[in-house]
Amino acid sequence: MADTATAQGFEPPALGEPYLLTPGPLTTAYSVKQAMLKDWGSWDGDFRAMTADMRRRLLALTGDRKSEYDCVPLQGSGSYCVEAMLGSFVPKDGKVLVLANGAYGLRAAQTMKYLGRAHTLIDKGDYLPPRGDEVGAALDADPAITHVLAIHCETSSGILNPVPEIAEVVKAKGRKLLVDSMSAFGAVPLDVNDIGYEAMVSSANKCIEGVPGFGFVIAKKSALEAAKGNSHSLSLDVHAQWAAMEKTGQWRFTPPTHVVAAFLEALKMHEAEGGVAGRGARYTRNRDVMVAGMRELGFETLLSDRWLSPIIVTFFCPAHEKFVFNRFYELMKDKGFIIYPGKLTVVDSFRVGCIGRMDEHVMRRVVEAAKQSLDEMGVDTAAPPATAIAERAKLAA
Amino acid sequence: MADTATAQGFEPPALGEPYLLTPGPLTTAYSVKQAMLKDWGSWDGDFRAMTADMRRRLLALTGDRKSEYDCVPLQGSGSYCVEAMLGSFVPKDGKVLVLANGAYGLRAAQTMKYLGRAHTLIDKGDYLPPRGDEVGAALDADPAITHVLAIHCETSSGILNPVPEIAEVVKAKGRKLLVDSMSAFGAVPLDVNDIGYEAMVSSANKCIEGVPGFGFVIAKKSALEAAKGNSHSLSLDVHAQWAAMEKTGQWRFTPPTHVVAAFLEALKMHEAEGGVAGRGARYTRNRDVMVAGMRELGFETLLSDRWLSPIIVTFFCPAHEKFVFNRFYELMKDKGFIIYPGKLTVVDSFRVGCIGRMDEHVMRRVVEAAKQSLDEMGVDTAAPPATAIAERAKLAA
Ligand SMILES: Cc1ncc(COP(=O)(O)O)c(C=O)c1O
Ligand SMILES: Cc1ncc(COP(=O)(O)O)c(C=O)c1O
Repeated sequence: MADTATAQGFEPPALGEPYLLTPGPLTTAYSVKQAMLKDWGSWDGDFRAMTADMRRRLLALTGDRKSEYDCVPLQGSGSYCVEAMLGSFVPKDGKVLVLANGAYGLRAAQTMKYLGRAHTLIDKGDYLPPRGDEVGAALDADPAITHVLAIHCETSSGILNPVPEIAEVVKAKGRKLLVDSMSAFGAVPLDVNDIGYEAMVSSANKCIEGVPGFGFVIAKKSALEAAKGNSHSLSLDVHAQWAAMEKTGQWRFTPPTHVVAAFLEALKMHEAEGGVAGRGARYTRNRDVMVAGMRELGFETLLSDRWLSPIIVTFFCPAHEKFVFNRFYELMKDKGFIIYPGKLTVVDSFRVGCIGRMDEHVMRRVVEAAKQSLDEMGVDTAAPPATAIAERAKLAA
Repeated sequence: MADTATAQGFEPPALGEPYLLTPGPLTTAYSVKQAMLKDWGSWDGDFRAMTADMRRRLLALTGDRKSEYDCVPLQGSGSYCVEAMLGSFVPKDGKVLVLANGAYGLRAAQTMKYLGRAHTLIDKGDYLPPRGDEVGAALDADPAITHVLAIHCETSSGILNPVPEIAEVVKAKGRKLLVDSMSAFGAVPLDVNDIGYEAMVSSANKCIEGVPGFGFVIAKKSALEAAKGNSHSLSLDVHAQWAAMEKTGQWRFTPPTHVVAAFLEALKMHEAEGGVAGRGARYTRNRDVMVAGMRELGFETLLSDRWLSPIIVTFFCPAHEKFVFNRFYELMKDKGFIIYPGKLTVVDSFRVGCIGRMDEHVMRRVVEAAKQSLDEMGVDTAAPPATAIAERAKLAA
C-alpha cells in the first residue's frame, strides 16, 4: 500500500530516521522497503514477470510510441551503467565528445580512458553549461566524432544541462547522442520524440525513488543490435544482457531480487503520482520552497534560477568564520535531515537534494532546521555572505 | 533479533512464500530482510561504520592473523567480482590458467577473452575435477602462466573442487592462485594459512545468507597495491575501489545500502551459528539428509559422495517417460519448494540447494514433497532410473 500525502506532508521516515536530502540513496516510501521482505528465486516465473513488468513500465516513461526502444536493466551502480553504455554503443573505432561540467562528466571521460577508445572533452569547469553552438562547432571541427555524451542533470552542481538544444545540434550534424540521465530520469522530461537519443542510462535510486542496487539502459533497438561484440567487459555488455533477457526473461547473472521488487513498487507509486509530470511538479515545488527559504536565511545558490534543477541545489558555505560544514552537517542530522557535501573544486559549498519521498512541508522544516543550526553555530544570517569569495561569479544566463 | 532454530527447524519463510532450494538468491532470515526497512545516506558516518564493520567481519573469516589481506566489497553480481579480480590482479602481460569443470569456469575463460589477456584452459567437462598433478604438468609446460584460477564449488554441478591440492602445486611452482569461492565461502574452509591465495571472490547472497546486490574481493594487500593501473574497467577496478575506501571509508560509487545492511545482519547470524564451522555443519547435515532421502526415492546423484559439496547437489532426471522437469518444478513449488534446473550439457538433470535459512527438518519435507510430486506425475519410483542414460558414467573417485 502506498503511503499517503497528508496536509502535513508524506509519512515521515520510519523508526525516527533522518530524511536524506541527498541525490540517492534517498528517502524512500515505507511500502517500497516493505517490498523487500520476501525472497524470490531469480529463475522462477514470478520474478521473470516482475522483470518484464519493470522493463515495460520504464519504457512507458520514454514516450516511445513506435516501439523503437528497449530497456535493459543492469546490476551495479549508476557508474557501471554509464561505462556499459559507452563500452557497448561506441564501437572500438568510434569517438566520443564528452560534455563535462562537473564530476560525472569528468568520470565519463575517465571511463573512456579505461576503455582506450578515442574521445575528446569540452570541459566547462564546475558549473557552466555546455551550449548547442559550441557543441556544433566541436562536431564541425572533428568529423571523427561519432557520439556525444551529455549529462542531463550534472548532480555535482545540480545544473540542469540544456539537453534539448544539444540534442538538436547533434542530430543536425548526423551524430549520435548518449545521455547520462541518472539523477533526472523520471522527474525531468526526456521524451524520445523530442530528443532521439541513441541510449540513455539512469538508476533505481534516483527520481523513481527505489533503493540502490542496479541501473538501466534505455536504447534504440537498432543500437542494441549493433552493439554486439563492442563491449570491453563481459559484465557490462549491454548487448549480451539484452539478448539473454529477450531469450529467457532472466537477467544473465544473479539479479538484486529484493531491490528489483522495491523498484517495481516505486514505479507503481510514480505512476500513481502522475508519472514524470507529477513527480517533476513535486520536486520543483520542493526546490522552490527550499531555495526561497534558504535565500531568506542569507544562503546563496551557486546557480542562477535559469539553471537550477529540481533535483539538487548547491549553496555556497557562508563566508562566516563560525560556519564549519561538518558542524552544520551534524546539527542538521540531529534535527532529522542529512544534507550533502559540495563537489565544487574551487569554493566551499554544500548541497541539498529535492528528491525522494518528501514534499514542501518537509522542505519548510529543512529551512527551519537550517535556521536553528546557524543560530546554534552563532552564524549571523543578517551579515550578507555574498561579499566574501571572489570566485563567486554568477552564471551569465 | 535472529530467529531461532526450533525442534521443527527454523522459522518458515514469511508470507507463506516458498523455500528457495537454489544457490542464491536463497531463503534468508526474516531479520536479514527487516534490516532493509531503513534508508541510509551513503556518505554518512553511520553507513561508513557499517561498511568498516562488514569488511572486518569478512576478514575475520579468512584466518588471516598476520593482517596480510584486505577486503574490498564491490557493487554488482558475483560475475562482476570474478571479472574485477581477473582484470585487476592479472597484469596486462600476465597469463591465466583457468581450471574449468562447468559453467562458472567457462565463464571465467570467456571473461579473459573479453579482457584480451592471455589465458589457457583445462576443461574437464561437466563434472570431472581438475587434479593437482595435471595442474602441475600444465604449469611446467607453460612458463608464461602467472596465475591459476580455481572454482571452489563449481555450482553448475555442485562439485567441491580439490582446492587444497591445487593450491599446493600452484605454490610449489611459484605461481599465484585466484579462487572463485562464490558459492562456498563462509561454509567451506578456505583458510589463508593453508591456501595462500592471491585473491578470492564471493558474494552477499550465498553462504553468508544475505540478499543479492554486491560481492567482495579478499586479496593480499601486496596484490591490491600491485593492481594499480591493471584494470580494463573503471567500475571493476579493485585497486581504485580499495584505495578510495581506505582513504574515505566510502564506496567509490553509490553502494546498495539496504543490501549492505542486510548482509551485516547476516554476518552477525553467521557468527552466532559458529562461523564457517557451524554454517558448514548445518549445510552438510542438510545435504546428507536430503541426498539420503532422494536416493531412497530412486533419484541418483551425478557425483559420487567423495565430490558432493554441502552447497548444491545435481540429480539426474529419472529416465521415466512421465517425468517432465517443468511439471516437477511446478509441483514442488506448489508444495513450497523452489528447486533449480540443471546446467549439464549432456544429460537432463536438476539441482537442489542445501544453503540458506533452513535445516534438516526442512530437508525432510523437501524429500516428502519430491515423493508426492513423483506420485502425482505417475512416476514409479520403484523402477530403477539408473539404467537409462549411457552417459551416466560415475566419477572414479
Ligand atoms: C549524473 C550522474 N551520473 C552518474 C552517477 C553515478 O552513479 P552511481 O553513484 O550510482 O555510480 C550519478 C550519481 O549520483 C549521477 O548523479
Ligand atoms: C561458482 C560461481 N561463480 C560465479 C557465479 C556468478 O555469480 P552471479 O550470478 O552473482 O553473477 C556463481 C553464481 O552462482 C557461482 O556459483
